[in-house]
Amino acid sequence: MDHSGRLLGIRKTLAAHKLDVLLVTHLPNIRYLCGFSGSSGVLLVSEKGSVFFTDGRYTTQARAEVQGARLAVTRKPGLSAAAEWLKSRGQGLRRIGVEGEHMTVGARCRLTAVLPTRTRLREAPALVEQMRMVKDEEEISRLRAAVRLGAGLFDAALKTIRPGVKEADVAAEMEYAARRAGAEQMSFETIIASGERSALPHGRASQAVIPAHGFVVCDFGVILAGYCSDMTRTVHVGDPTHQARQTYETVREAQQAAVDAVGSGTSVGEVDRAARKLLHKRHLAKFFTHSTGHGVGLEIHESPRIAAAQTEILRPGMVITIEPGVYVPGKWGVRIEDMVVVRERGYEMLTPTSKELVVI
Amino acid sequence: MDHSGRLLGIRKTLAAHKLDVLLVTHLPNIRYLCGFSGSSGVLLVSEKGSVFFTDGRYTTQARAEVQGARLAVTRKPGLSAAAEWLKSRGQGLRRIGVEGEHMTVGARCRLTAVLPTRTRLREAPALVEQMRMVKDEEEISRLRAAVRLGAGLFDAALKTIRPGVKEADVAAEMEYAARRAGAEQMSFETIIASGERSALPHGRASQAVIPAHGFVVCDFGVILAGYCSDMTRTVHVGDPTHQARQTYETVREAQQAAVDAVGSGTSVGEVDRAARKLLHKRHLAKFFTHSTGHGVGLEIHESPRIAAAQTEILRPGMVITIEPGVYVPGKWGVRIEDMVVVRERGYEMLTPTSKELVVI
Repeated sequence: MDHSGRLLGIRKTLAAHKLDVLLVTHLPNIRYLCGFSGSSGVLLVSEKGSVFFTDGRYTTQARAEVQGARLAVTRKPGLSAAAEWLKSRGQGLRRIGVEGEHMTVGARCRLTAVLPTRTRLREAPALVEQMRMVKDEEEISRLRAAVRLGAGLFDAALKTIRPGVKEADVAAEMEYAARRAGAEQMSFETIIASGERSALPHGRASQAVIPAHGFVVCDFGVILAGYCSDMTRTVHVGDPTHQARQTYETVREAQQAAVDAVGSGTSVGEVDRAARKLLHKRHLAKFFTHSTGHGVGLEIHESPRIAAAQTEILRPGMVITIEPGVYVPGKWGVRIEDMVVVRERGYEMLTPTSKELVVI
Repeated sequence: MDHSGRLLGIRKTLAAHKLDVLLVTHLPNIRYLCGFSGSSGVLLVSEKGSVFFTDGRYTTQARAEVQGARLAVTRKPGLSAAAEWLKSRGQGLRRIGVEGEHMTVGARCRLTAVLPTRTRLREAPALVEQMRMVKDEEEISRLRAAVRLGAGLFDAALKTIRPGVKEADVAAEMEYAARRAGAEQMSFETIIASGERSALPHGRASQAVIPAHGFVVCDFGVILAGYCSDMTRTVHVGDPTHQARQTYETVREAQQAAVDAVGSGTSVGEVDRAARKLLHKRHLAKFFTHSTGHGVGLEIHESPRIAAAQTEILRPGMVITIEPGVYVPGKWGVRIEDMVVVRERGYEMLTPTSKELVVI
C-alpha cells in the first residue's frame, strides 16, 4: 500500500484548510494512512512530516507495520503523548485539526487541557474519509478477494437452510466456513431473517426457527486483509406464490437498474432513483425504507451514501453496495445486494453470485 | 429487569449534579435504563420523567422492549429529535447533561445548534456507569448463564488444539460451538496465541500454526441475553519444561491470591497488589504488563478497573475479572482469568473451569 503517498496527499491539503497539524484518531484512518492495524494510537500529520504515537503493548506490531511516519512509543496514551509532543516541539504548529466525528467531547477536553494556550483546536473536515472513498487497485484487489471469500459462505447457507433449522445455526455454519477459509472476522453481525422476520431490514440471525414456507434474507460479509465484503441474497423455502415470485423479480429488476446506473460522472442520487423508480412503477416503492447502498472498504459503511438526498458524484475506483429491498411488515421481505467498483465506463461487478431465485 | 427503578435512581441524582436533563446516548446505558437493545436511539431523563426517541426502523422493537420511558418514534435521528423536543416542550429544562465519553465533538456541535440559546450543555459525570457497576441478582443470573455457556467452549478448544492446527481453526470450532449453544455473539475477538505469540497479551487467533511445543493462551467470551462472559485458560502442547510448569504455577498462585483478596470493602488496588506481590516474589512482576482485571456486564470492559492506581472500593454485586499474566517477549506467555461476583463476605466464583495445567 502507498502509505507515503497517502500521507503526502493529506499534508498537501492542510494549508488549504488553514491547519498546521491534523490529529488522526480514527483507527481505520490511521491504518489507511500509515498501515498500523492495532487498536490504540494517534497519528500526527503536519506539513513537515508525520509521527505515530502508541504505547509499549504495540512496539513490535508498530515497528513491523508503520510506514511513512516516525514511530514514537510512549508510556502515555497516544493522545496525551501527541499533545505533549506538540507542547514541547510544536513550534509554529498552532492550528490543530481533530476528527470531530471520531473524537469524544471528553477526549477533546483532556487534549485542550494539555495543549499550550497559544494553540487553536478545531474540527477538521473529513479529509481522510474523502481520500478513502476512491480505492487504488491494490485496495480493489483486496476487496475482490474479500468478496470472493464472502460469496463462498452462501453455499454454506444453502446447505443449511431448511424448515425447522434455527436462523442462528445457519449463521453458525457460515461463520465457521468463513474462519476456515481464512477470514479475520465477519464484517458485521450476520443477518438471517426468515418468514415474517424477513420484513426486518436488520434481522440478525436469531433463535427463531425457519418456517416451512417463506423468504429467508441472508446478509453477510467478512474481513480479509483488513477489507470488508458485504452481500445479500434472499432465498425462498417451499414453492413461492405467484406474488412472492413477482416481488422477488421486481426487487431483482430494481437492483439491476441501480447497478446499470453506476458509472463515472453519475450522482449517487441518480443510482438511488433508478432503483426507486422501478419499484414505484410496481407500487412497491413505499416498502423500500432504506437507502440504496453505501461505500465499503476498511469499514463496512463508508462514504458515499447511495441515497436520494445525496449529491456525491461517482468516480472511478469508488466501491459501493447496491442493495434495494422491499419489506412488507408482518408478511415478508426481499433484499438483493452486490458490491461494484465504479469504472471510467460503467462498473465492475465484484459479487460473483447468481441472482436467480433459489427455492429450497 | 427493574428499568423503572433504575430510571428513578438516575432522576433522583440529577438535582445533586445541577442538571435538569440527562441525554443518554451510549447504547449500553440506554439498554440498562429502559431495555431498548436496538442500535439507534436517545434517552432523555428528567426529574419529571423519561422519553426514548428512535426512528421508524425500530418501532416494533421499541414497543416490545422499552419500559419506564415514554416512546417517541420520529423521522429524524434520535439526538435531533430529543433536541427539538427540548426546544418545544423543555420549559424549565435548561441544564442539559451529556455523556462526554460517548458523544463525539461533531454530535455535540449539531446538538448545540438546535437547542435554544437559553440552555446550557455540559458533560455529566458517568452516572449510569456508576450505577451499572453494582449488578442486581437478575443481572448476576444472566452473567452466570453467559459464563457457563462461555466455559463450555473450552472443551471445543481442547478437542482442537494440536500441533499443526491453525489458531484460527481453534477459534472457528469455539465460535461454532458458541452459536450452536445459543450465544448471540462473541463478546470480543477470540484470542488463541500459541508458541511465541503467547507472549502477546492481545494475540487474536491468526493463521499461525500451533507449534509442537509451547503454551497456547485461549481468551474468549460470549454474549447471552445481552450480558458478556470473559475467561482465559493457558494450556501446554507437549511436555512442559520445569521452568514452563513453574511459570504456570506462579501465575496460577498469583491469580488465586488476587481472587482471595476479593471482598466487600477491599479496594481494587489491593486486589491488583495481591497478584503483583506474588509475582514480585518470584521475580516475574516485570513481565506482568497489564492490569489485573475489569468489570463485566452489558459491556466486556466496564468499571471498575482492577489496577494499581485505582481507588474504587469493591461492593457486593460488582462482577469483575481476575486475570494476571506473565509475558516473556520472544519466549512465552501465560494468563489465567476467572469472573467473580463480590459478595458481603468474599466472593462467588462464576467460572466453573479447573485451573490445573492441561498438557496436550
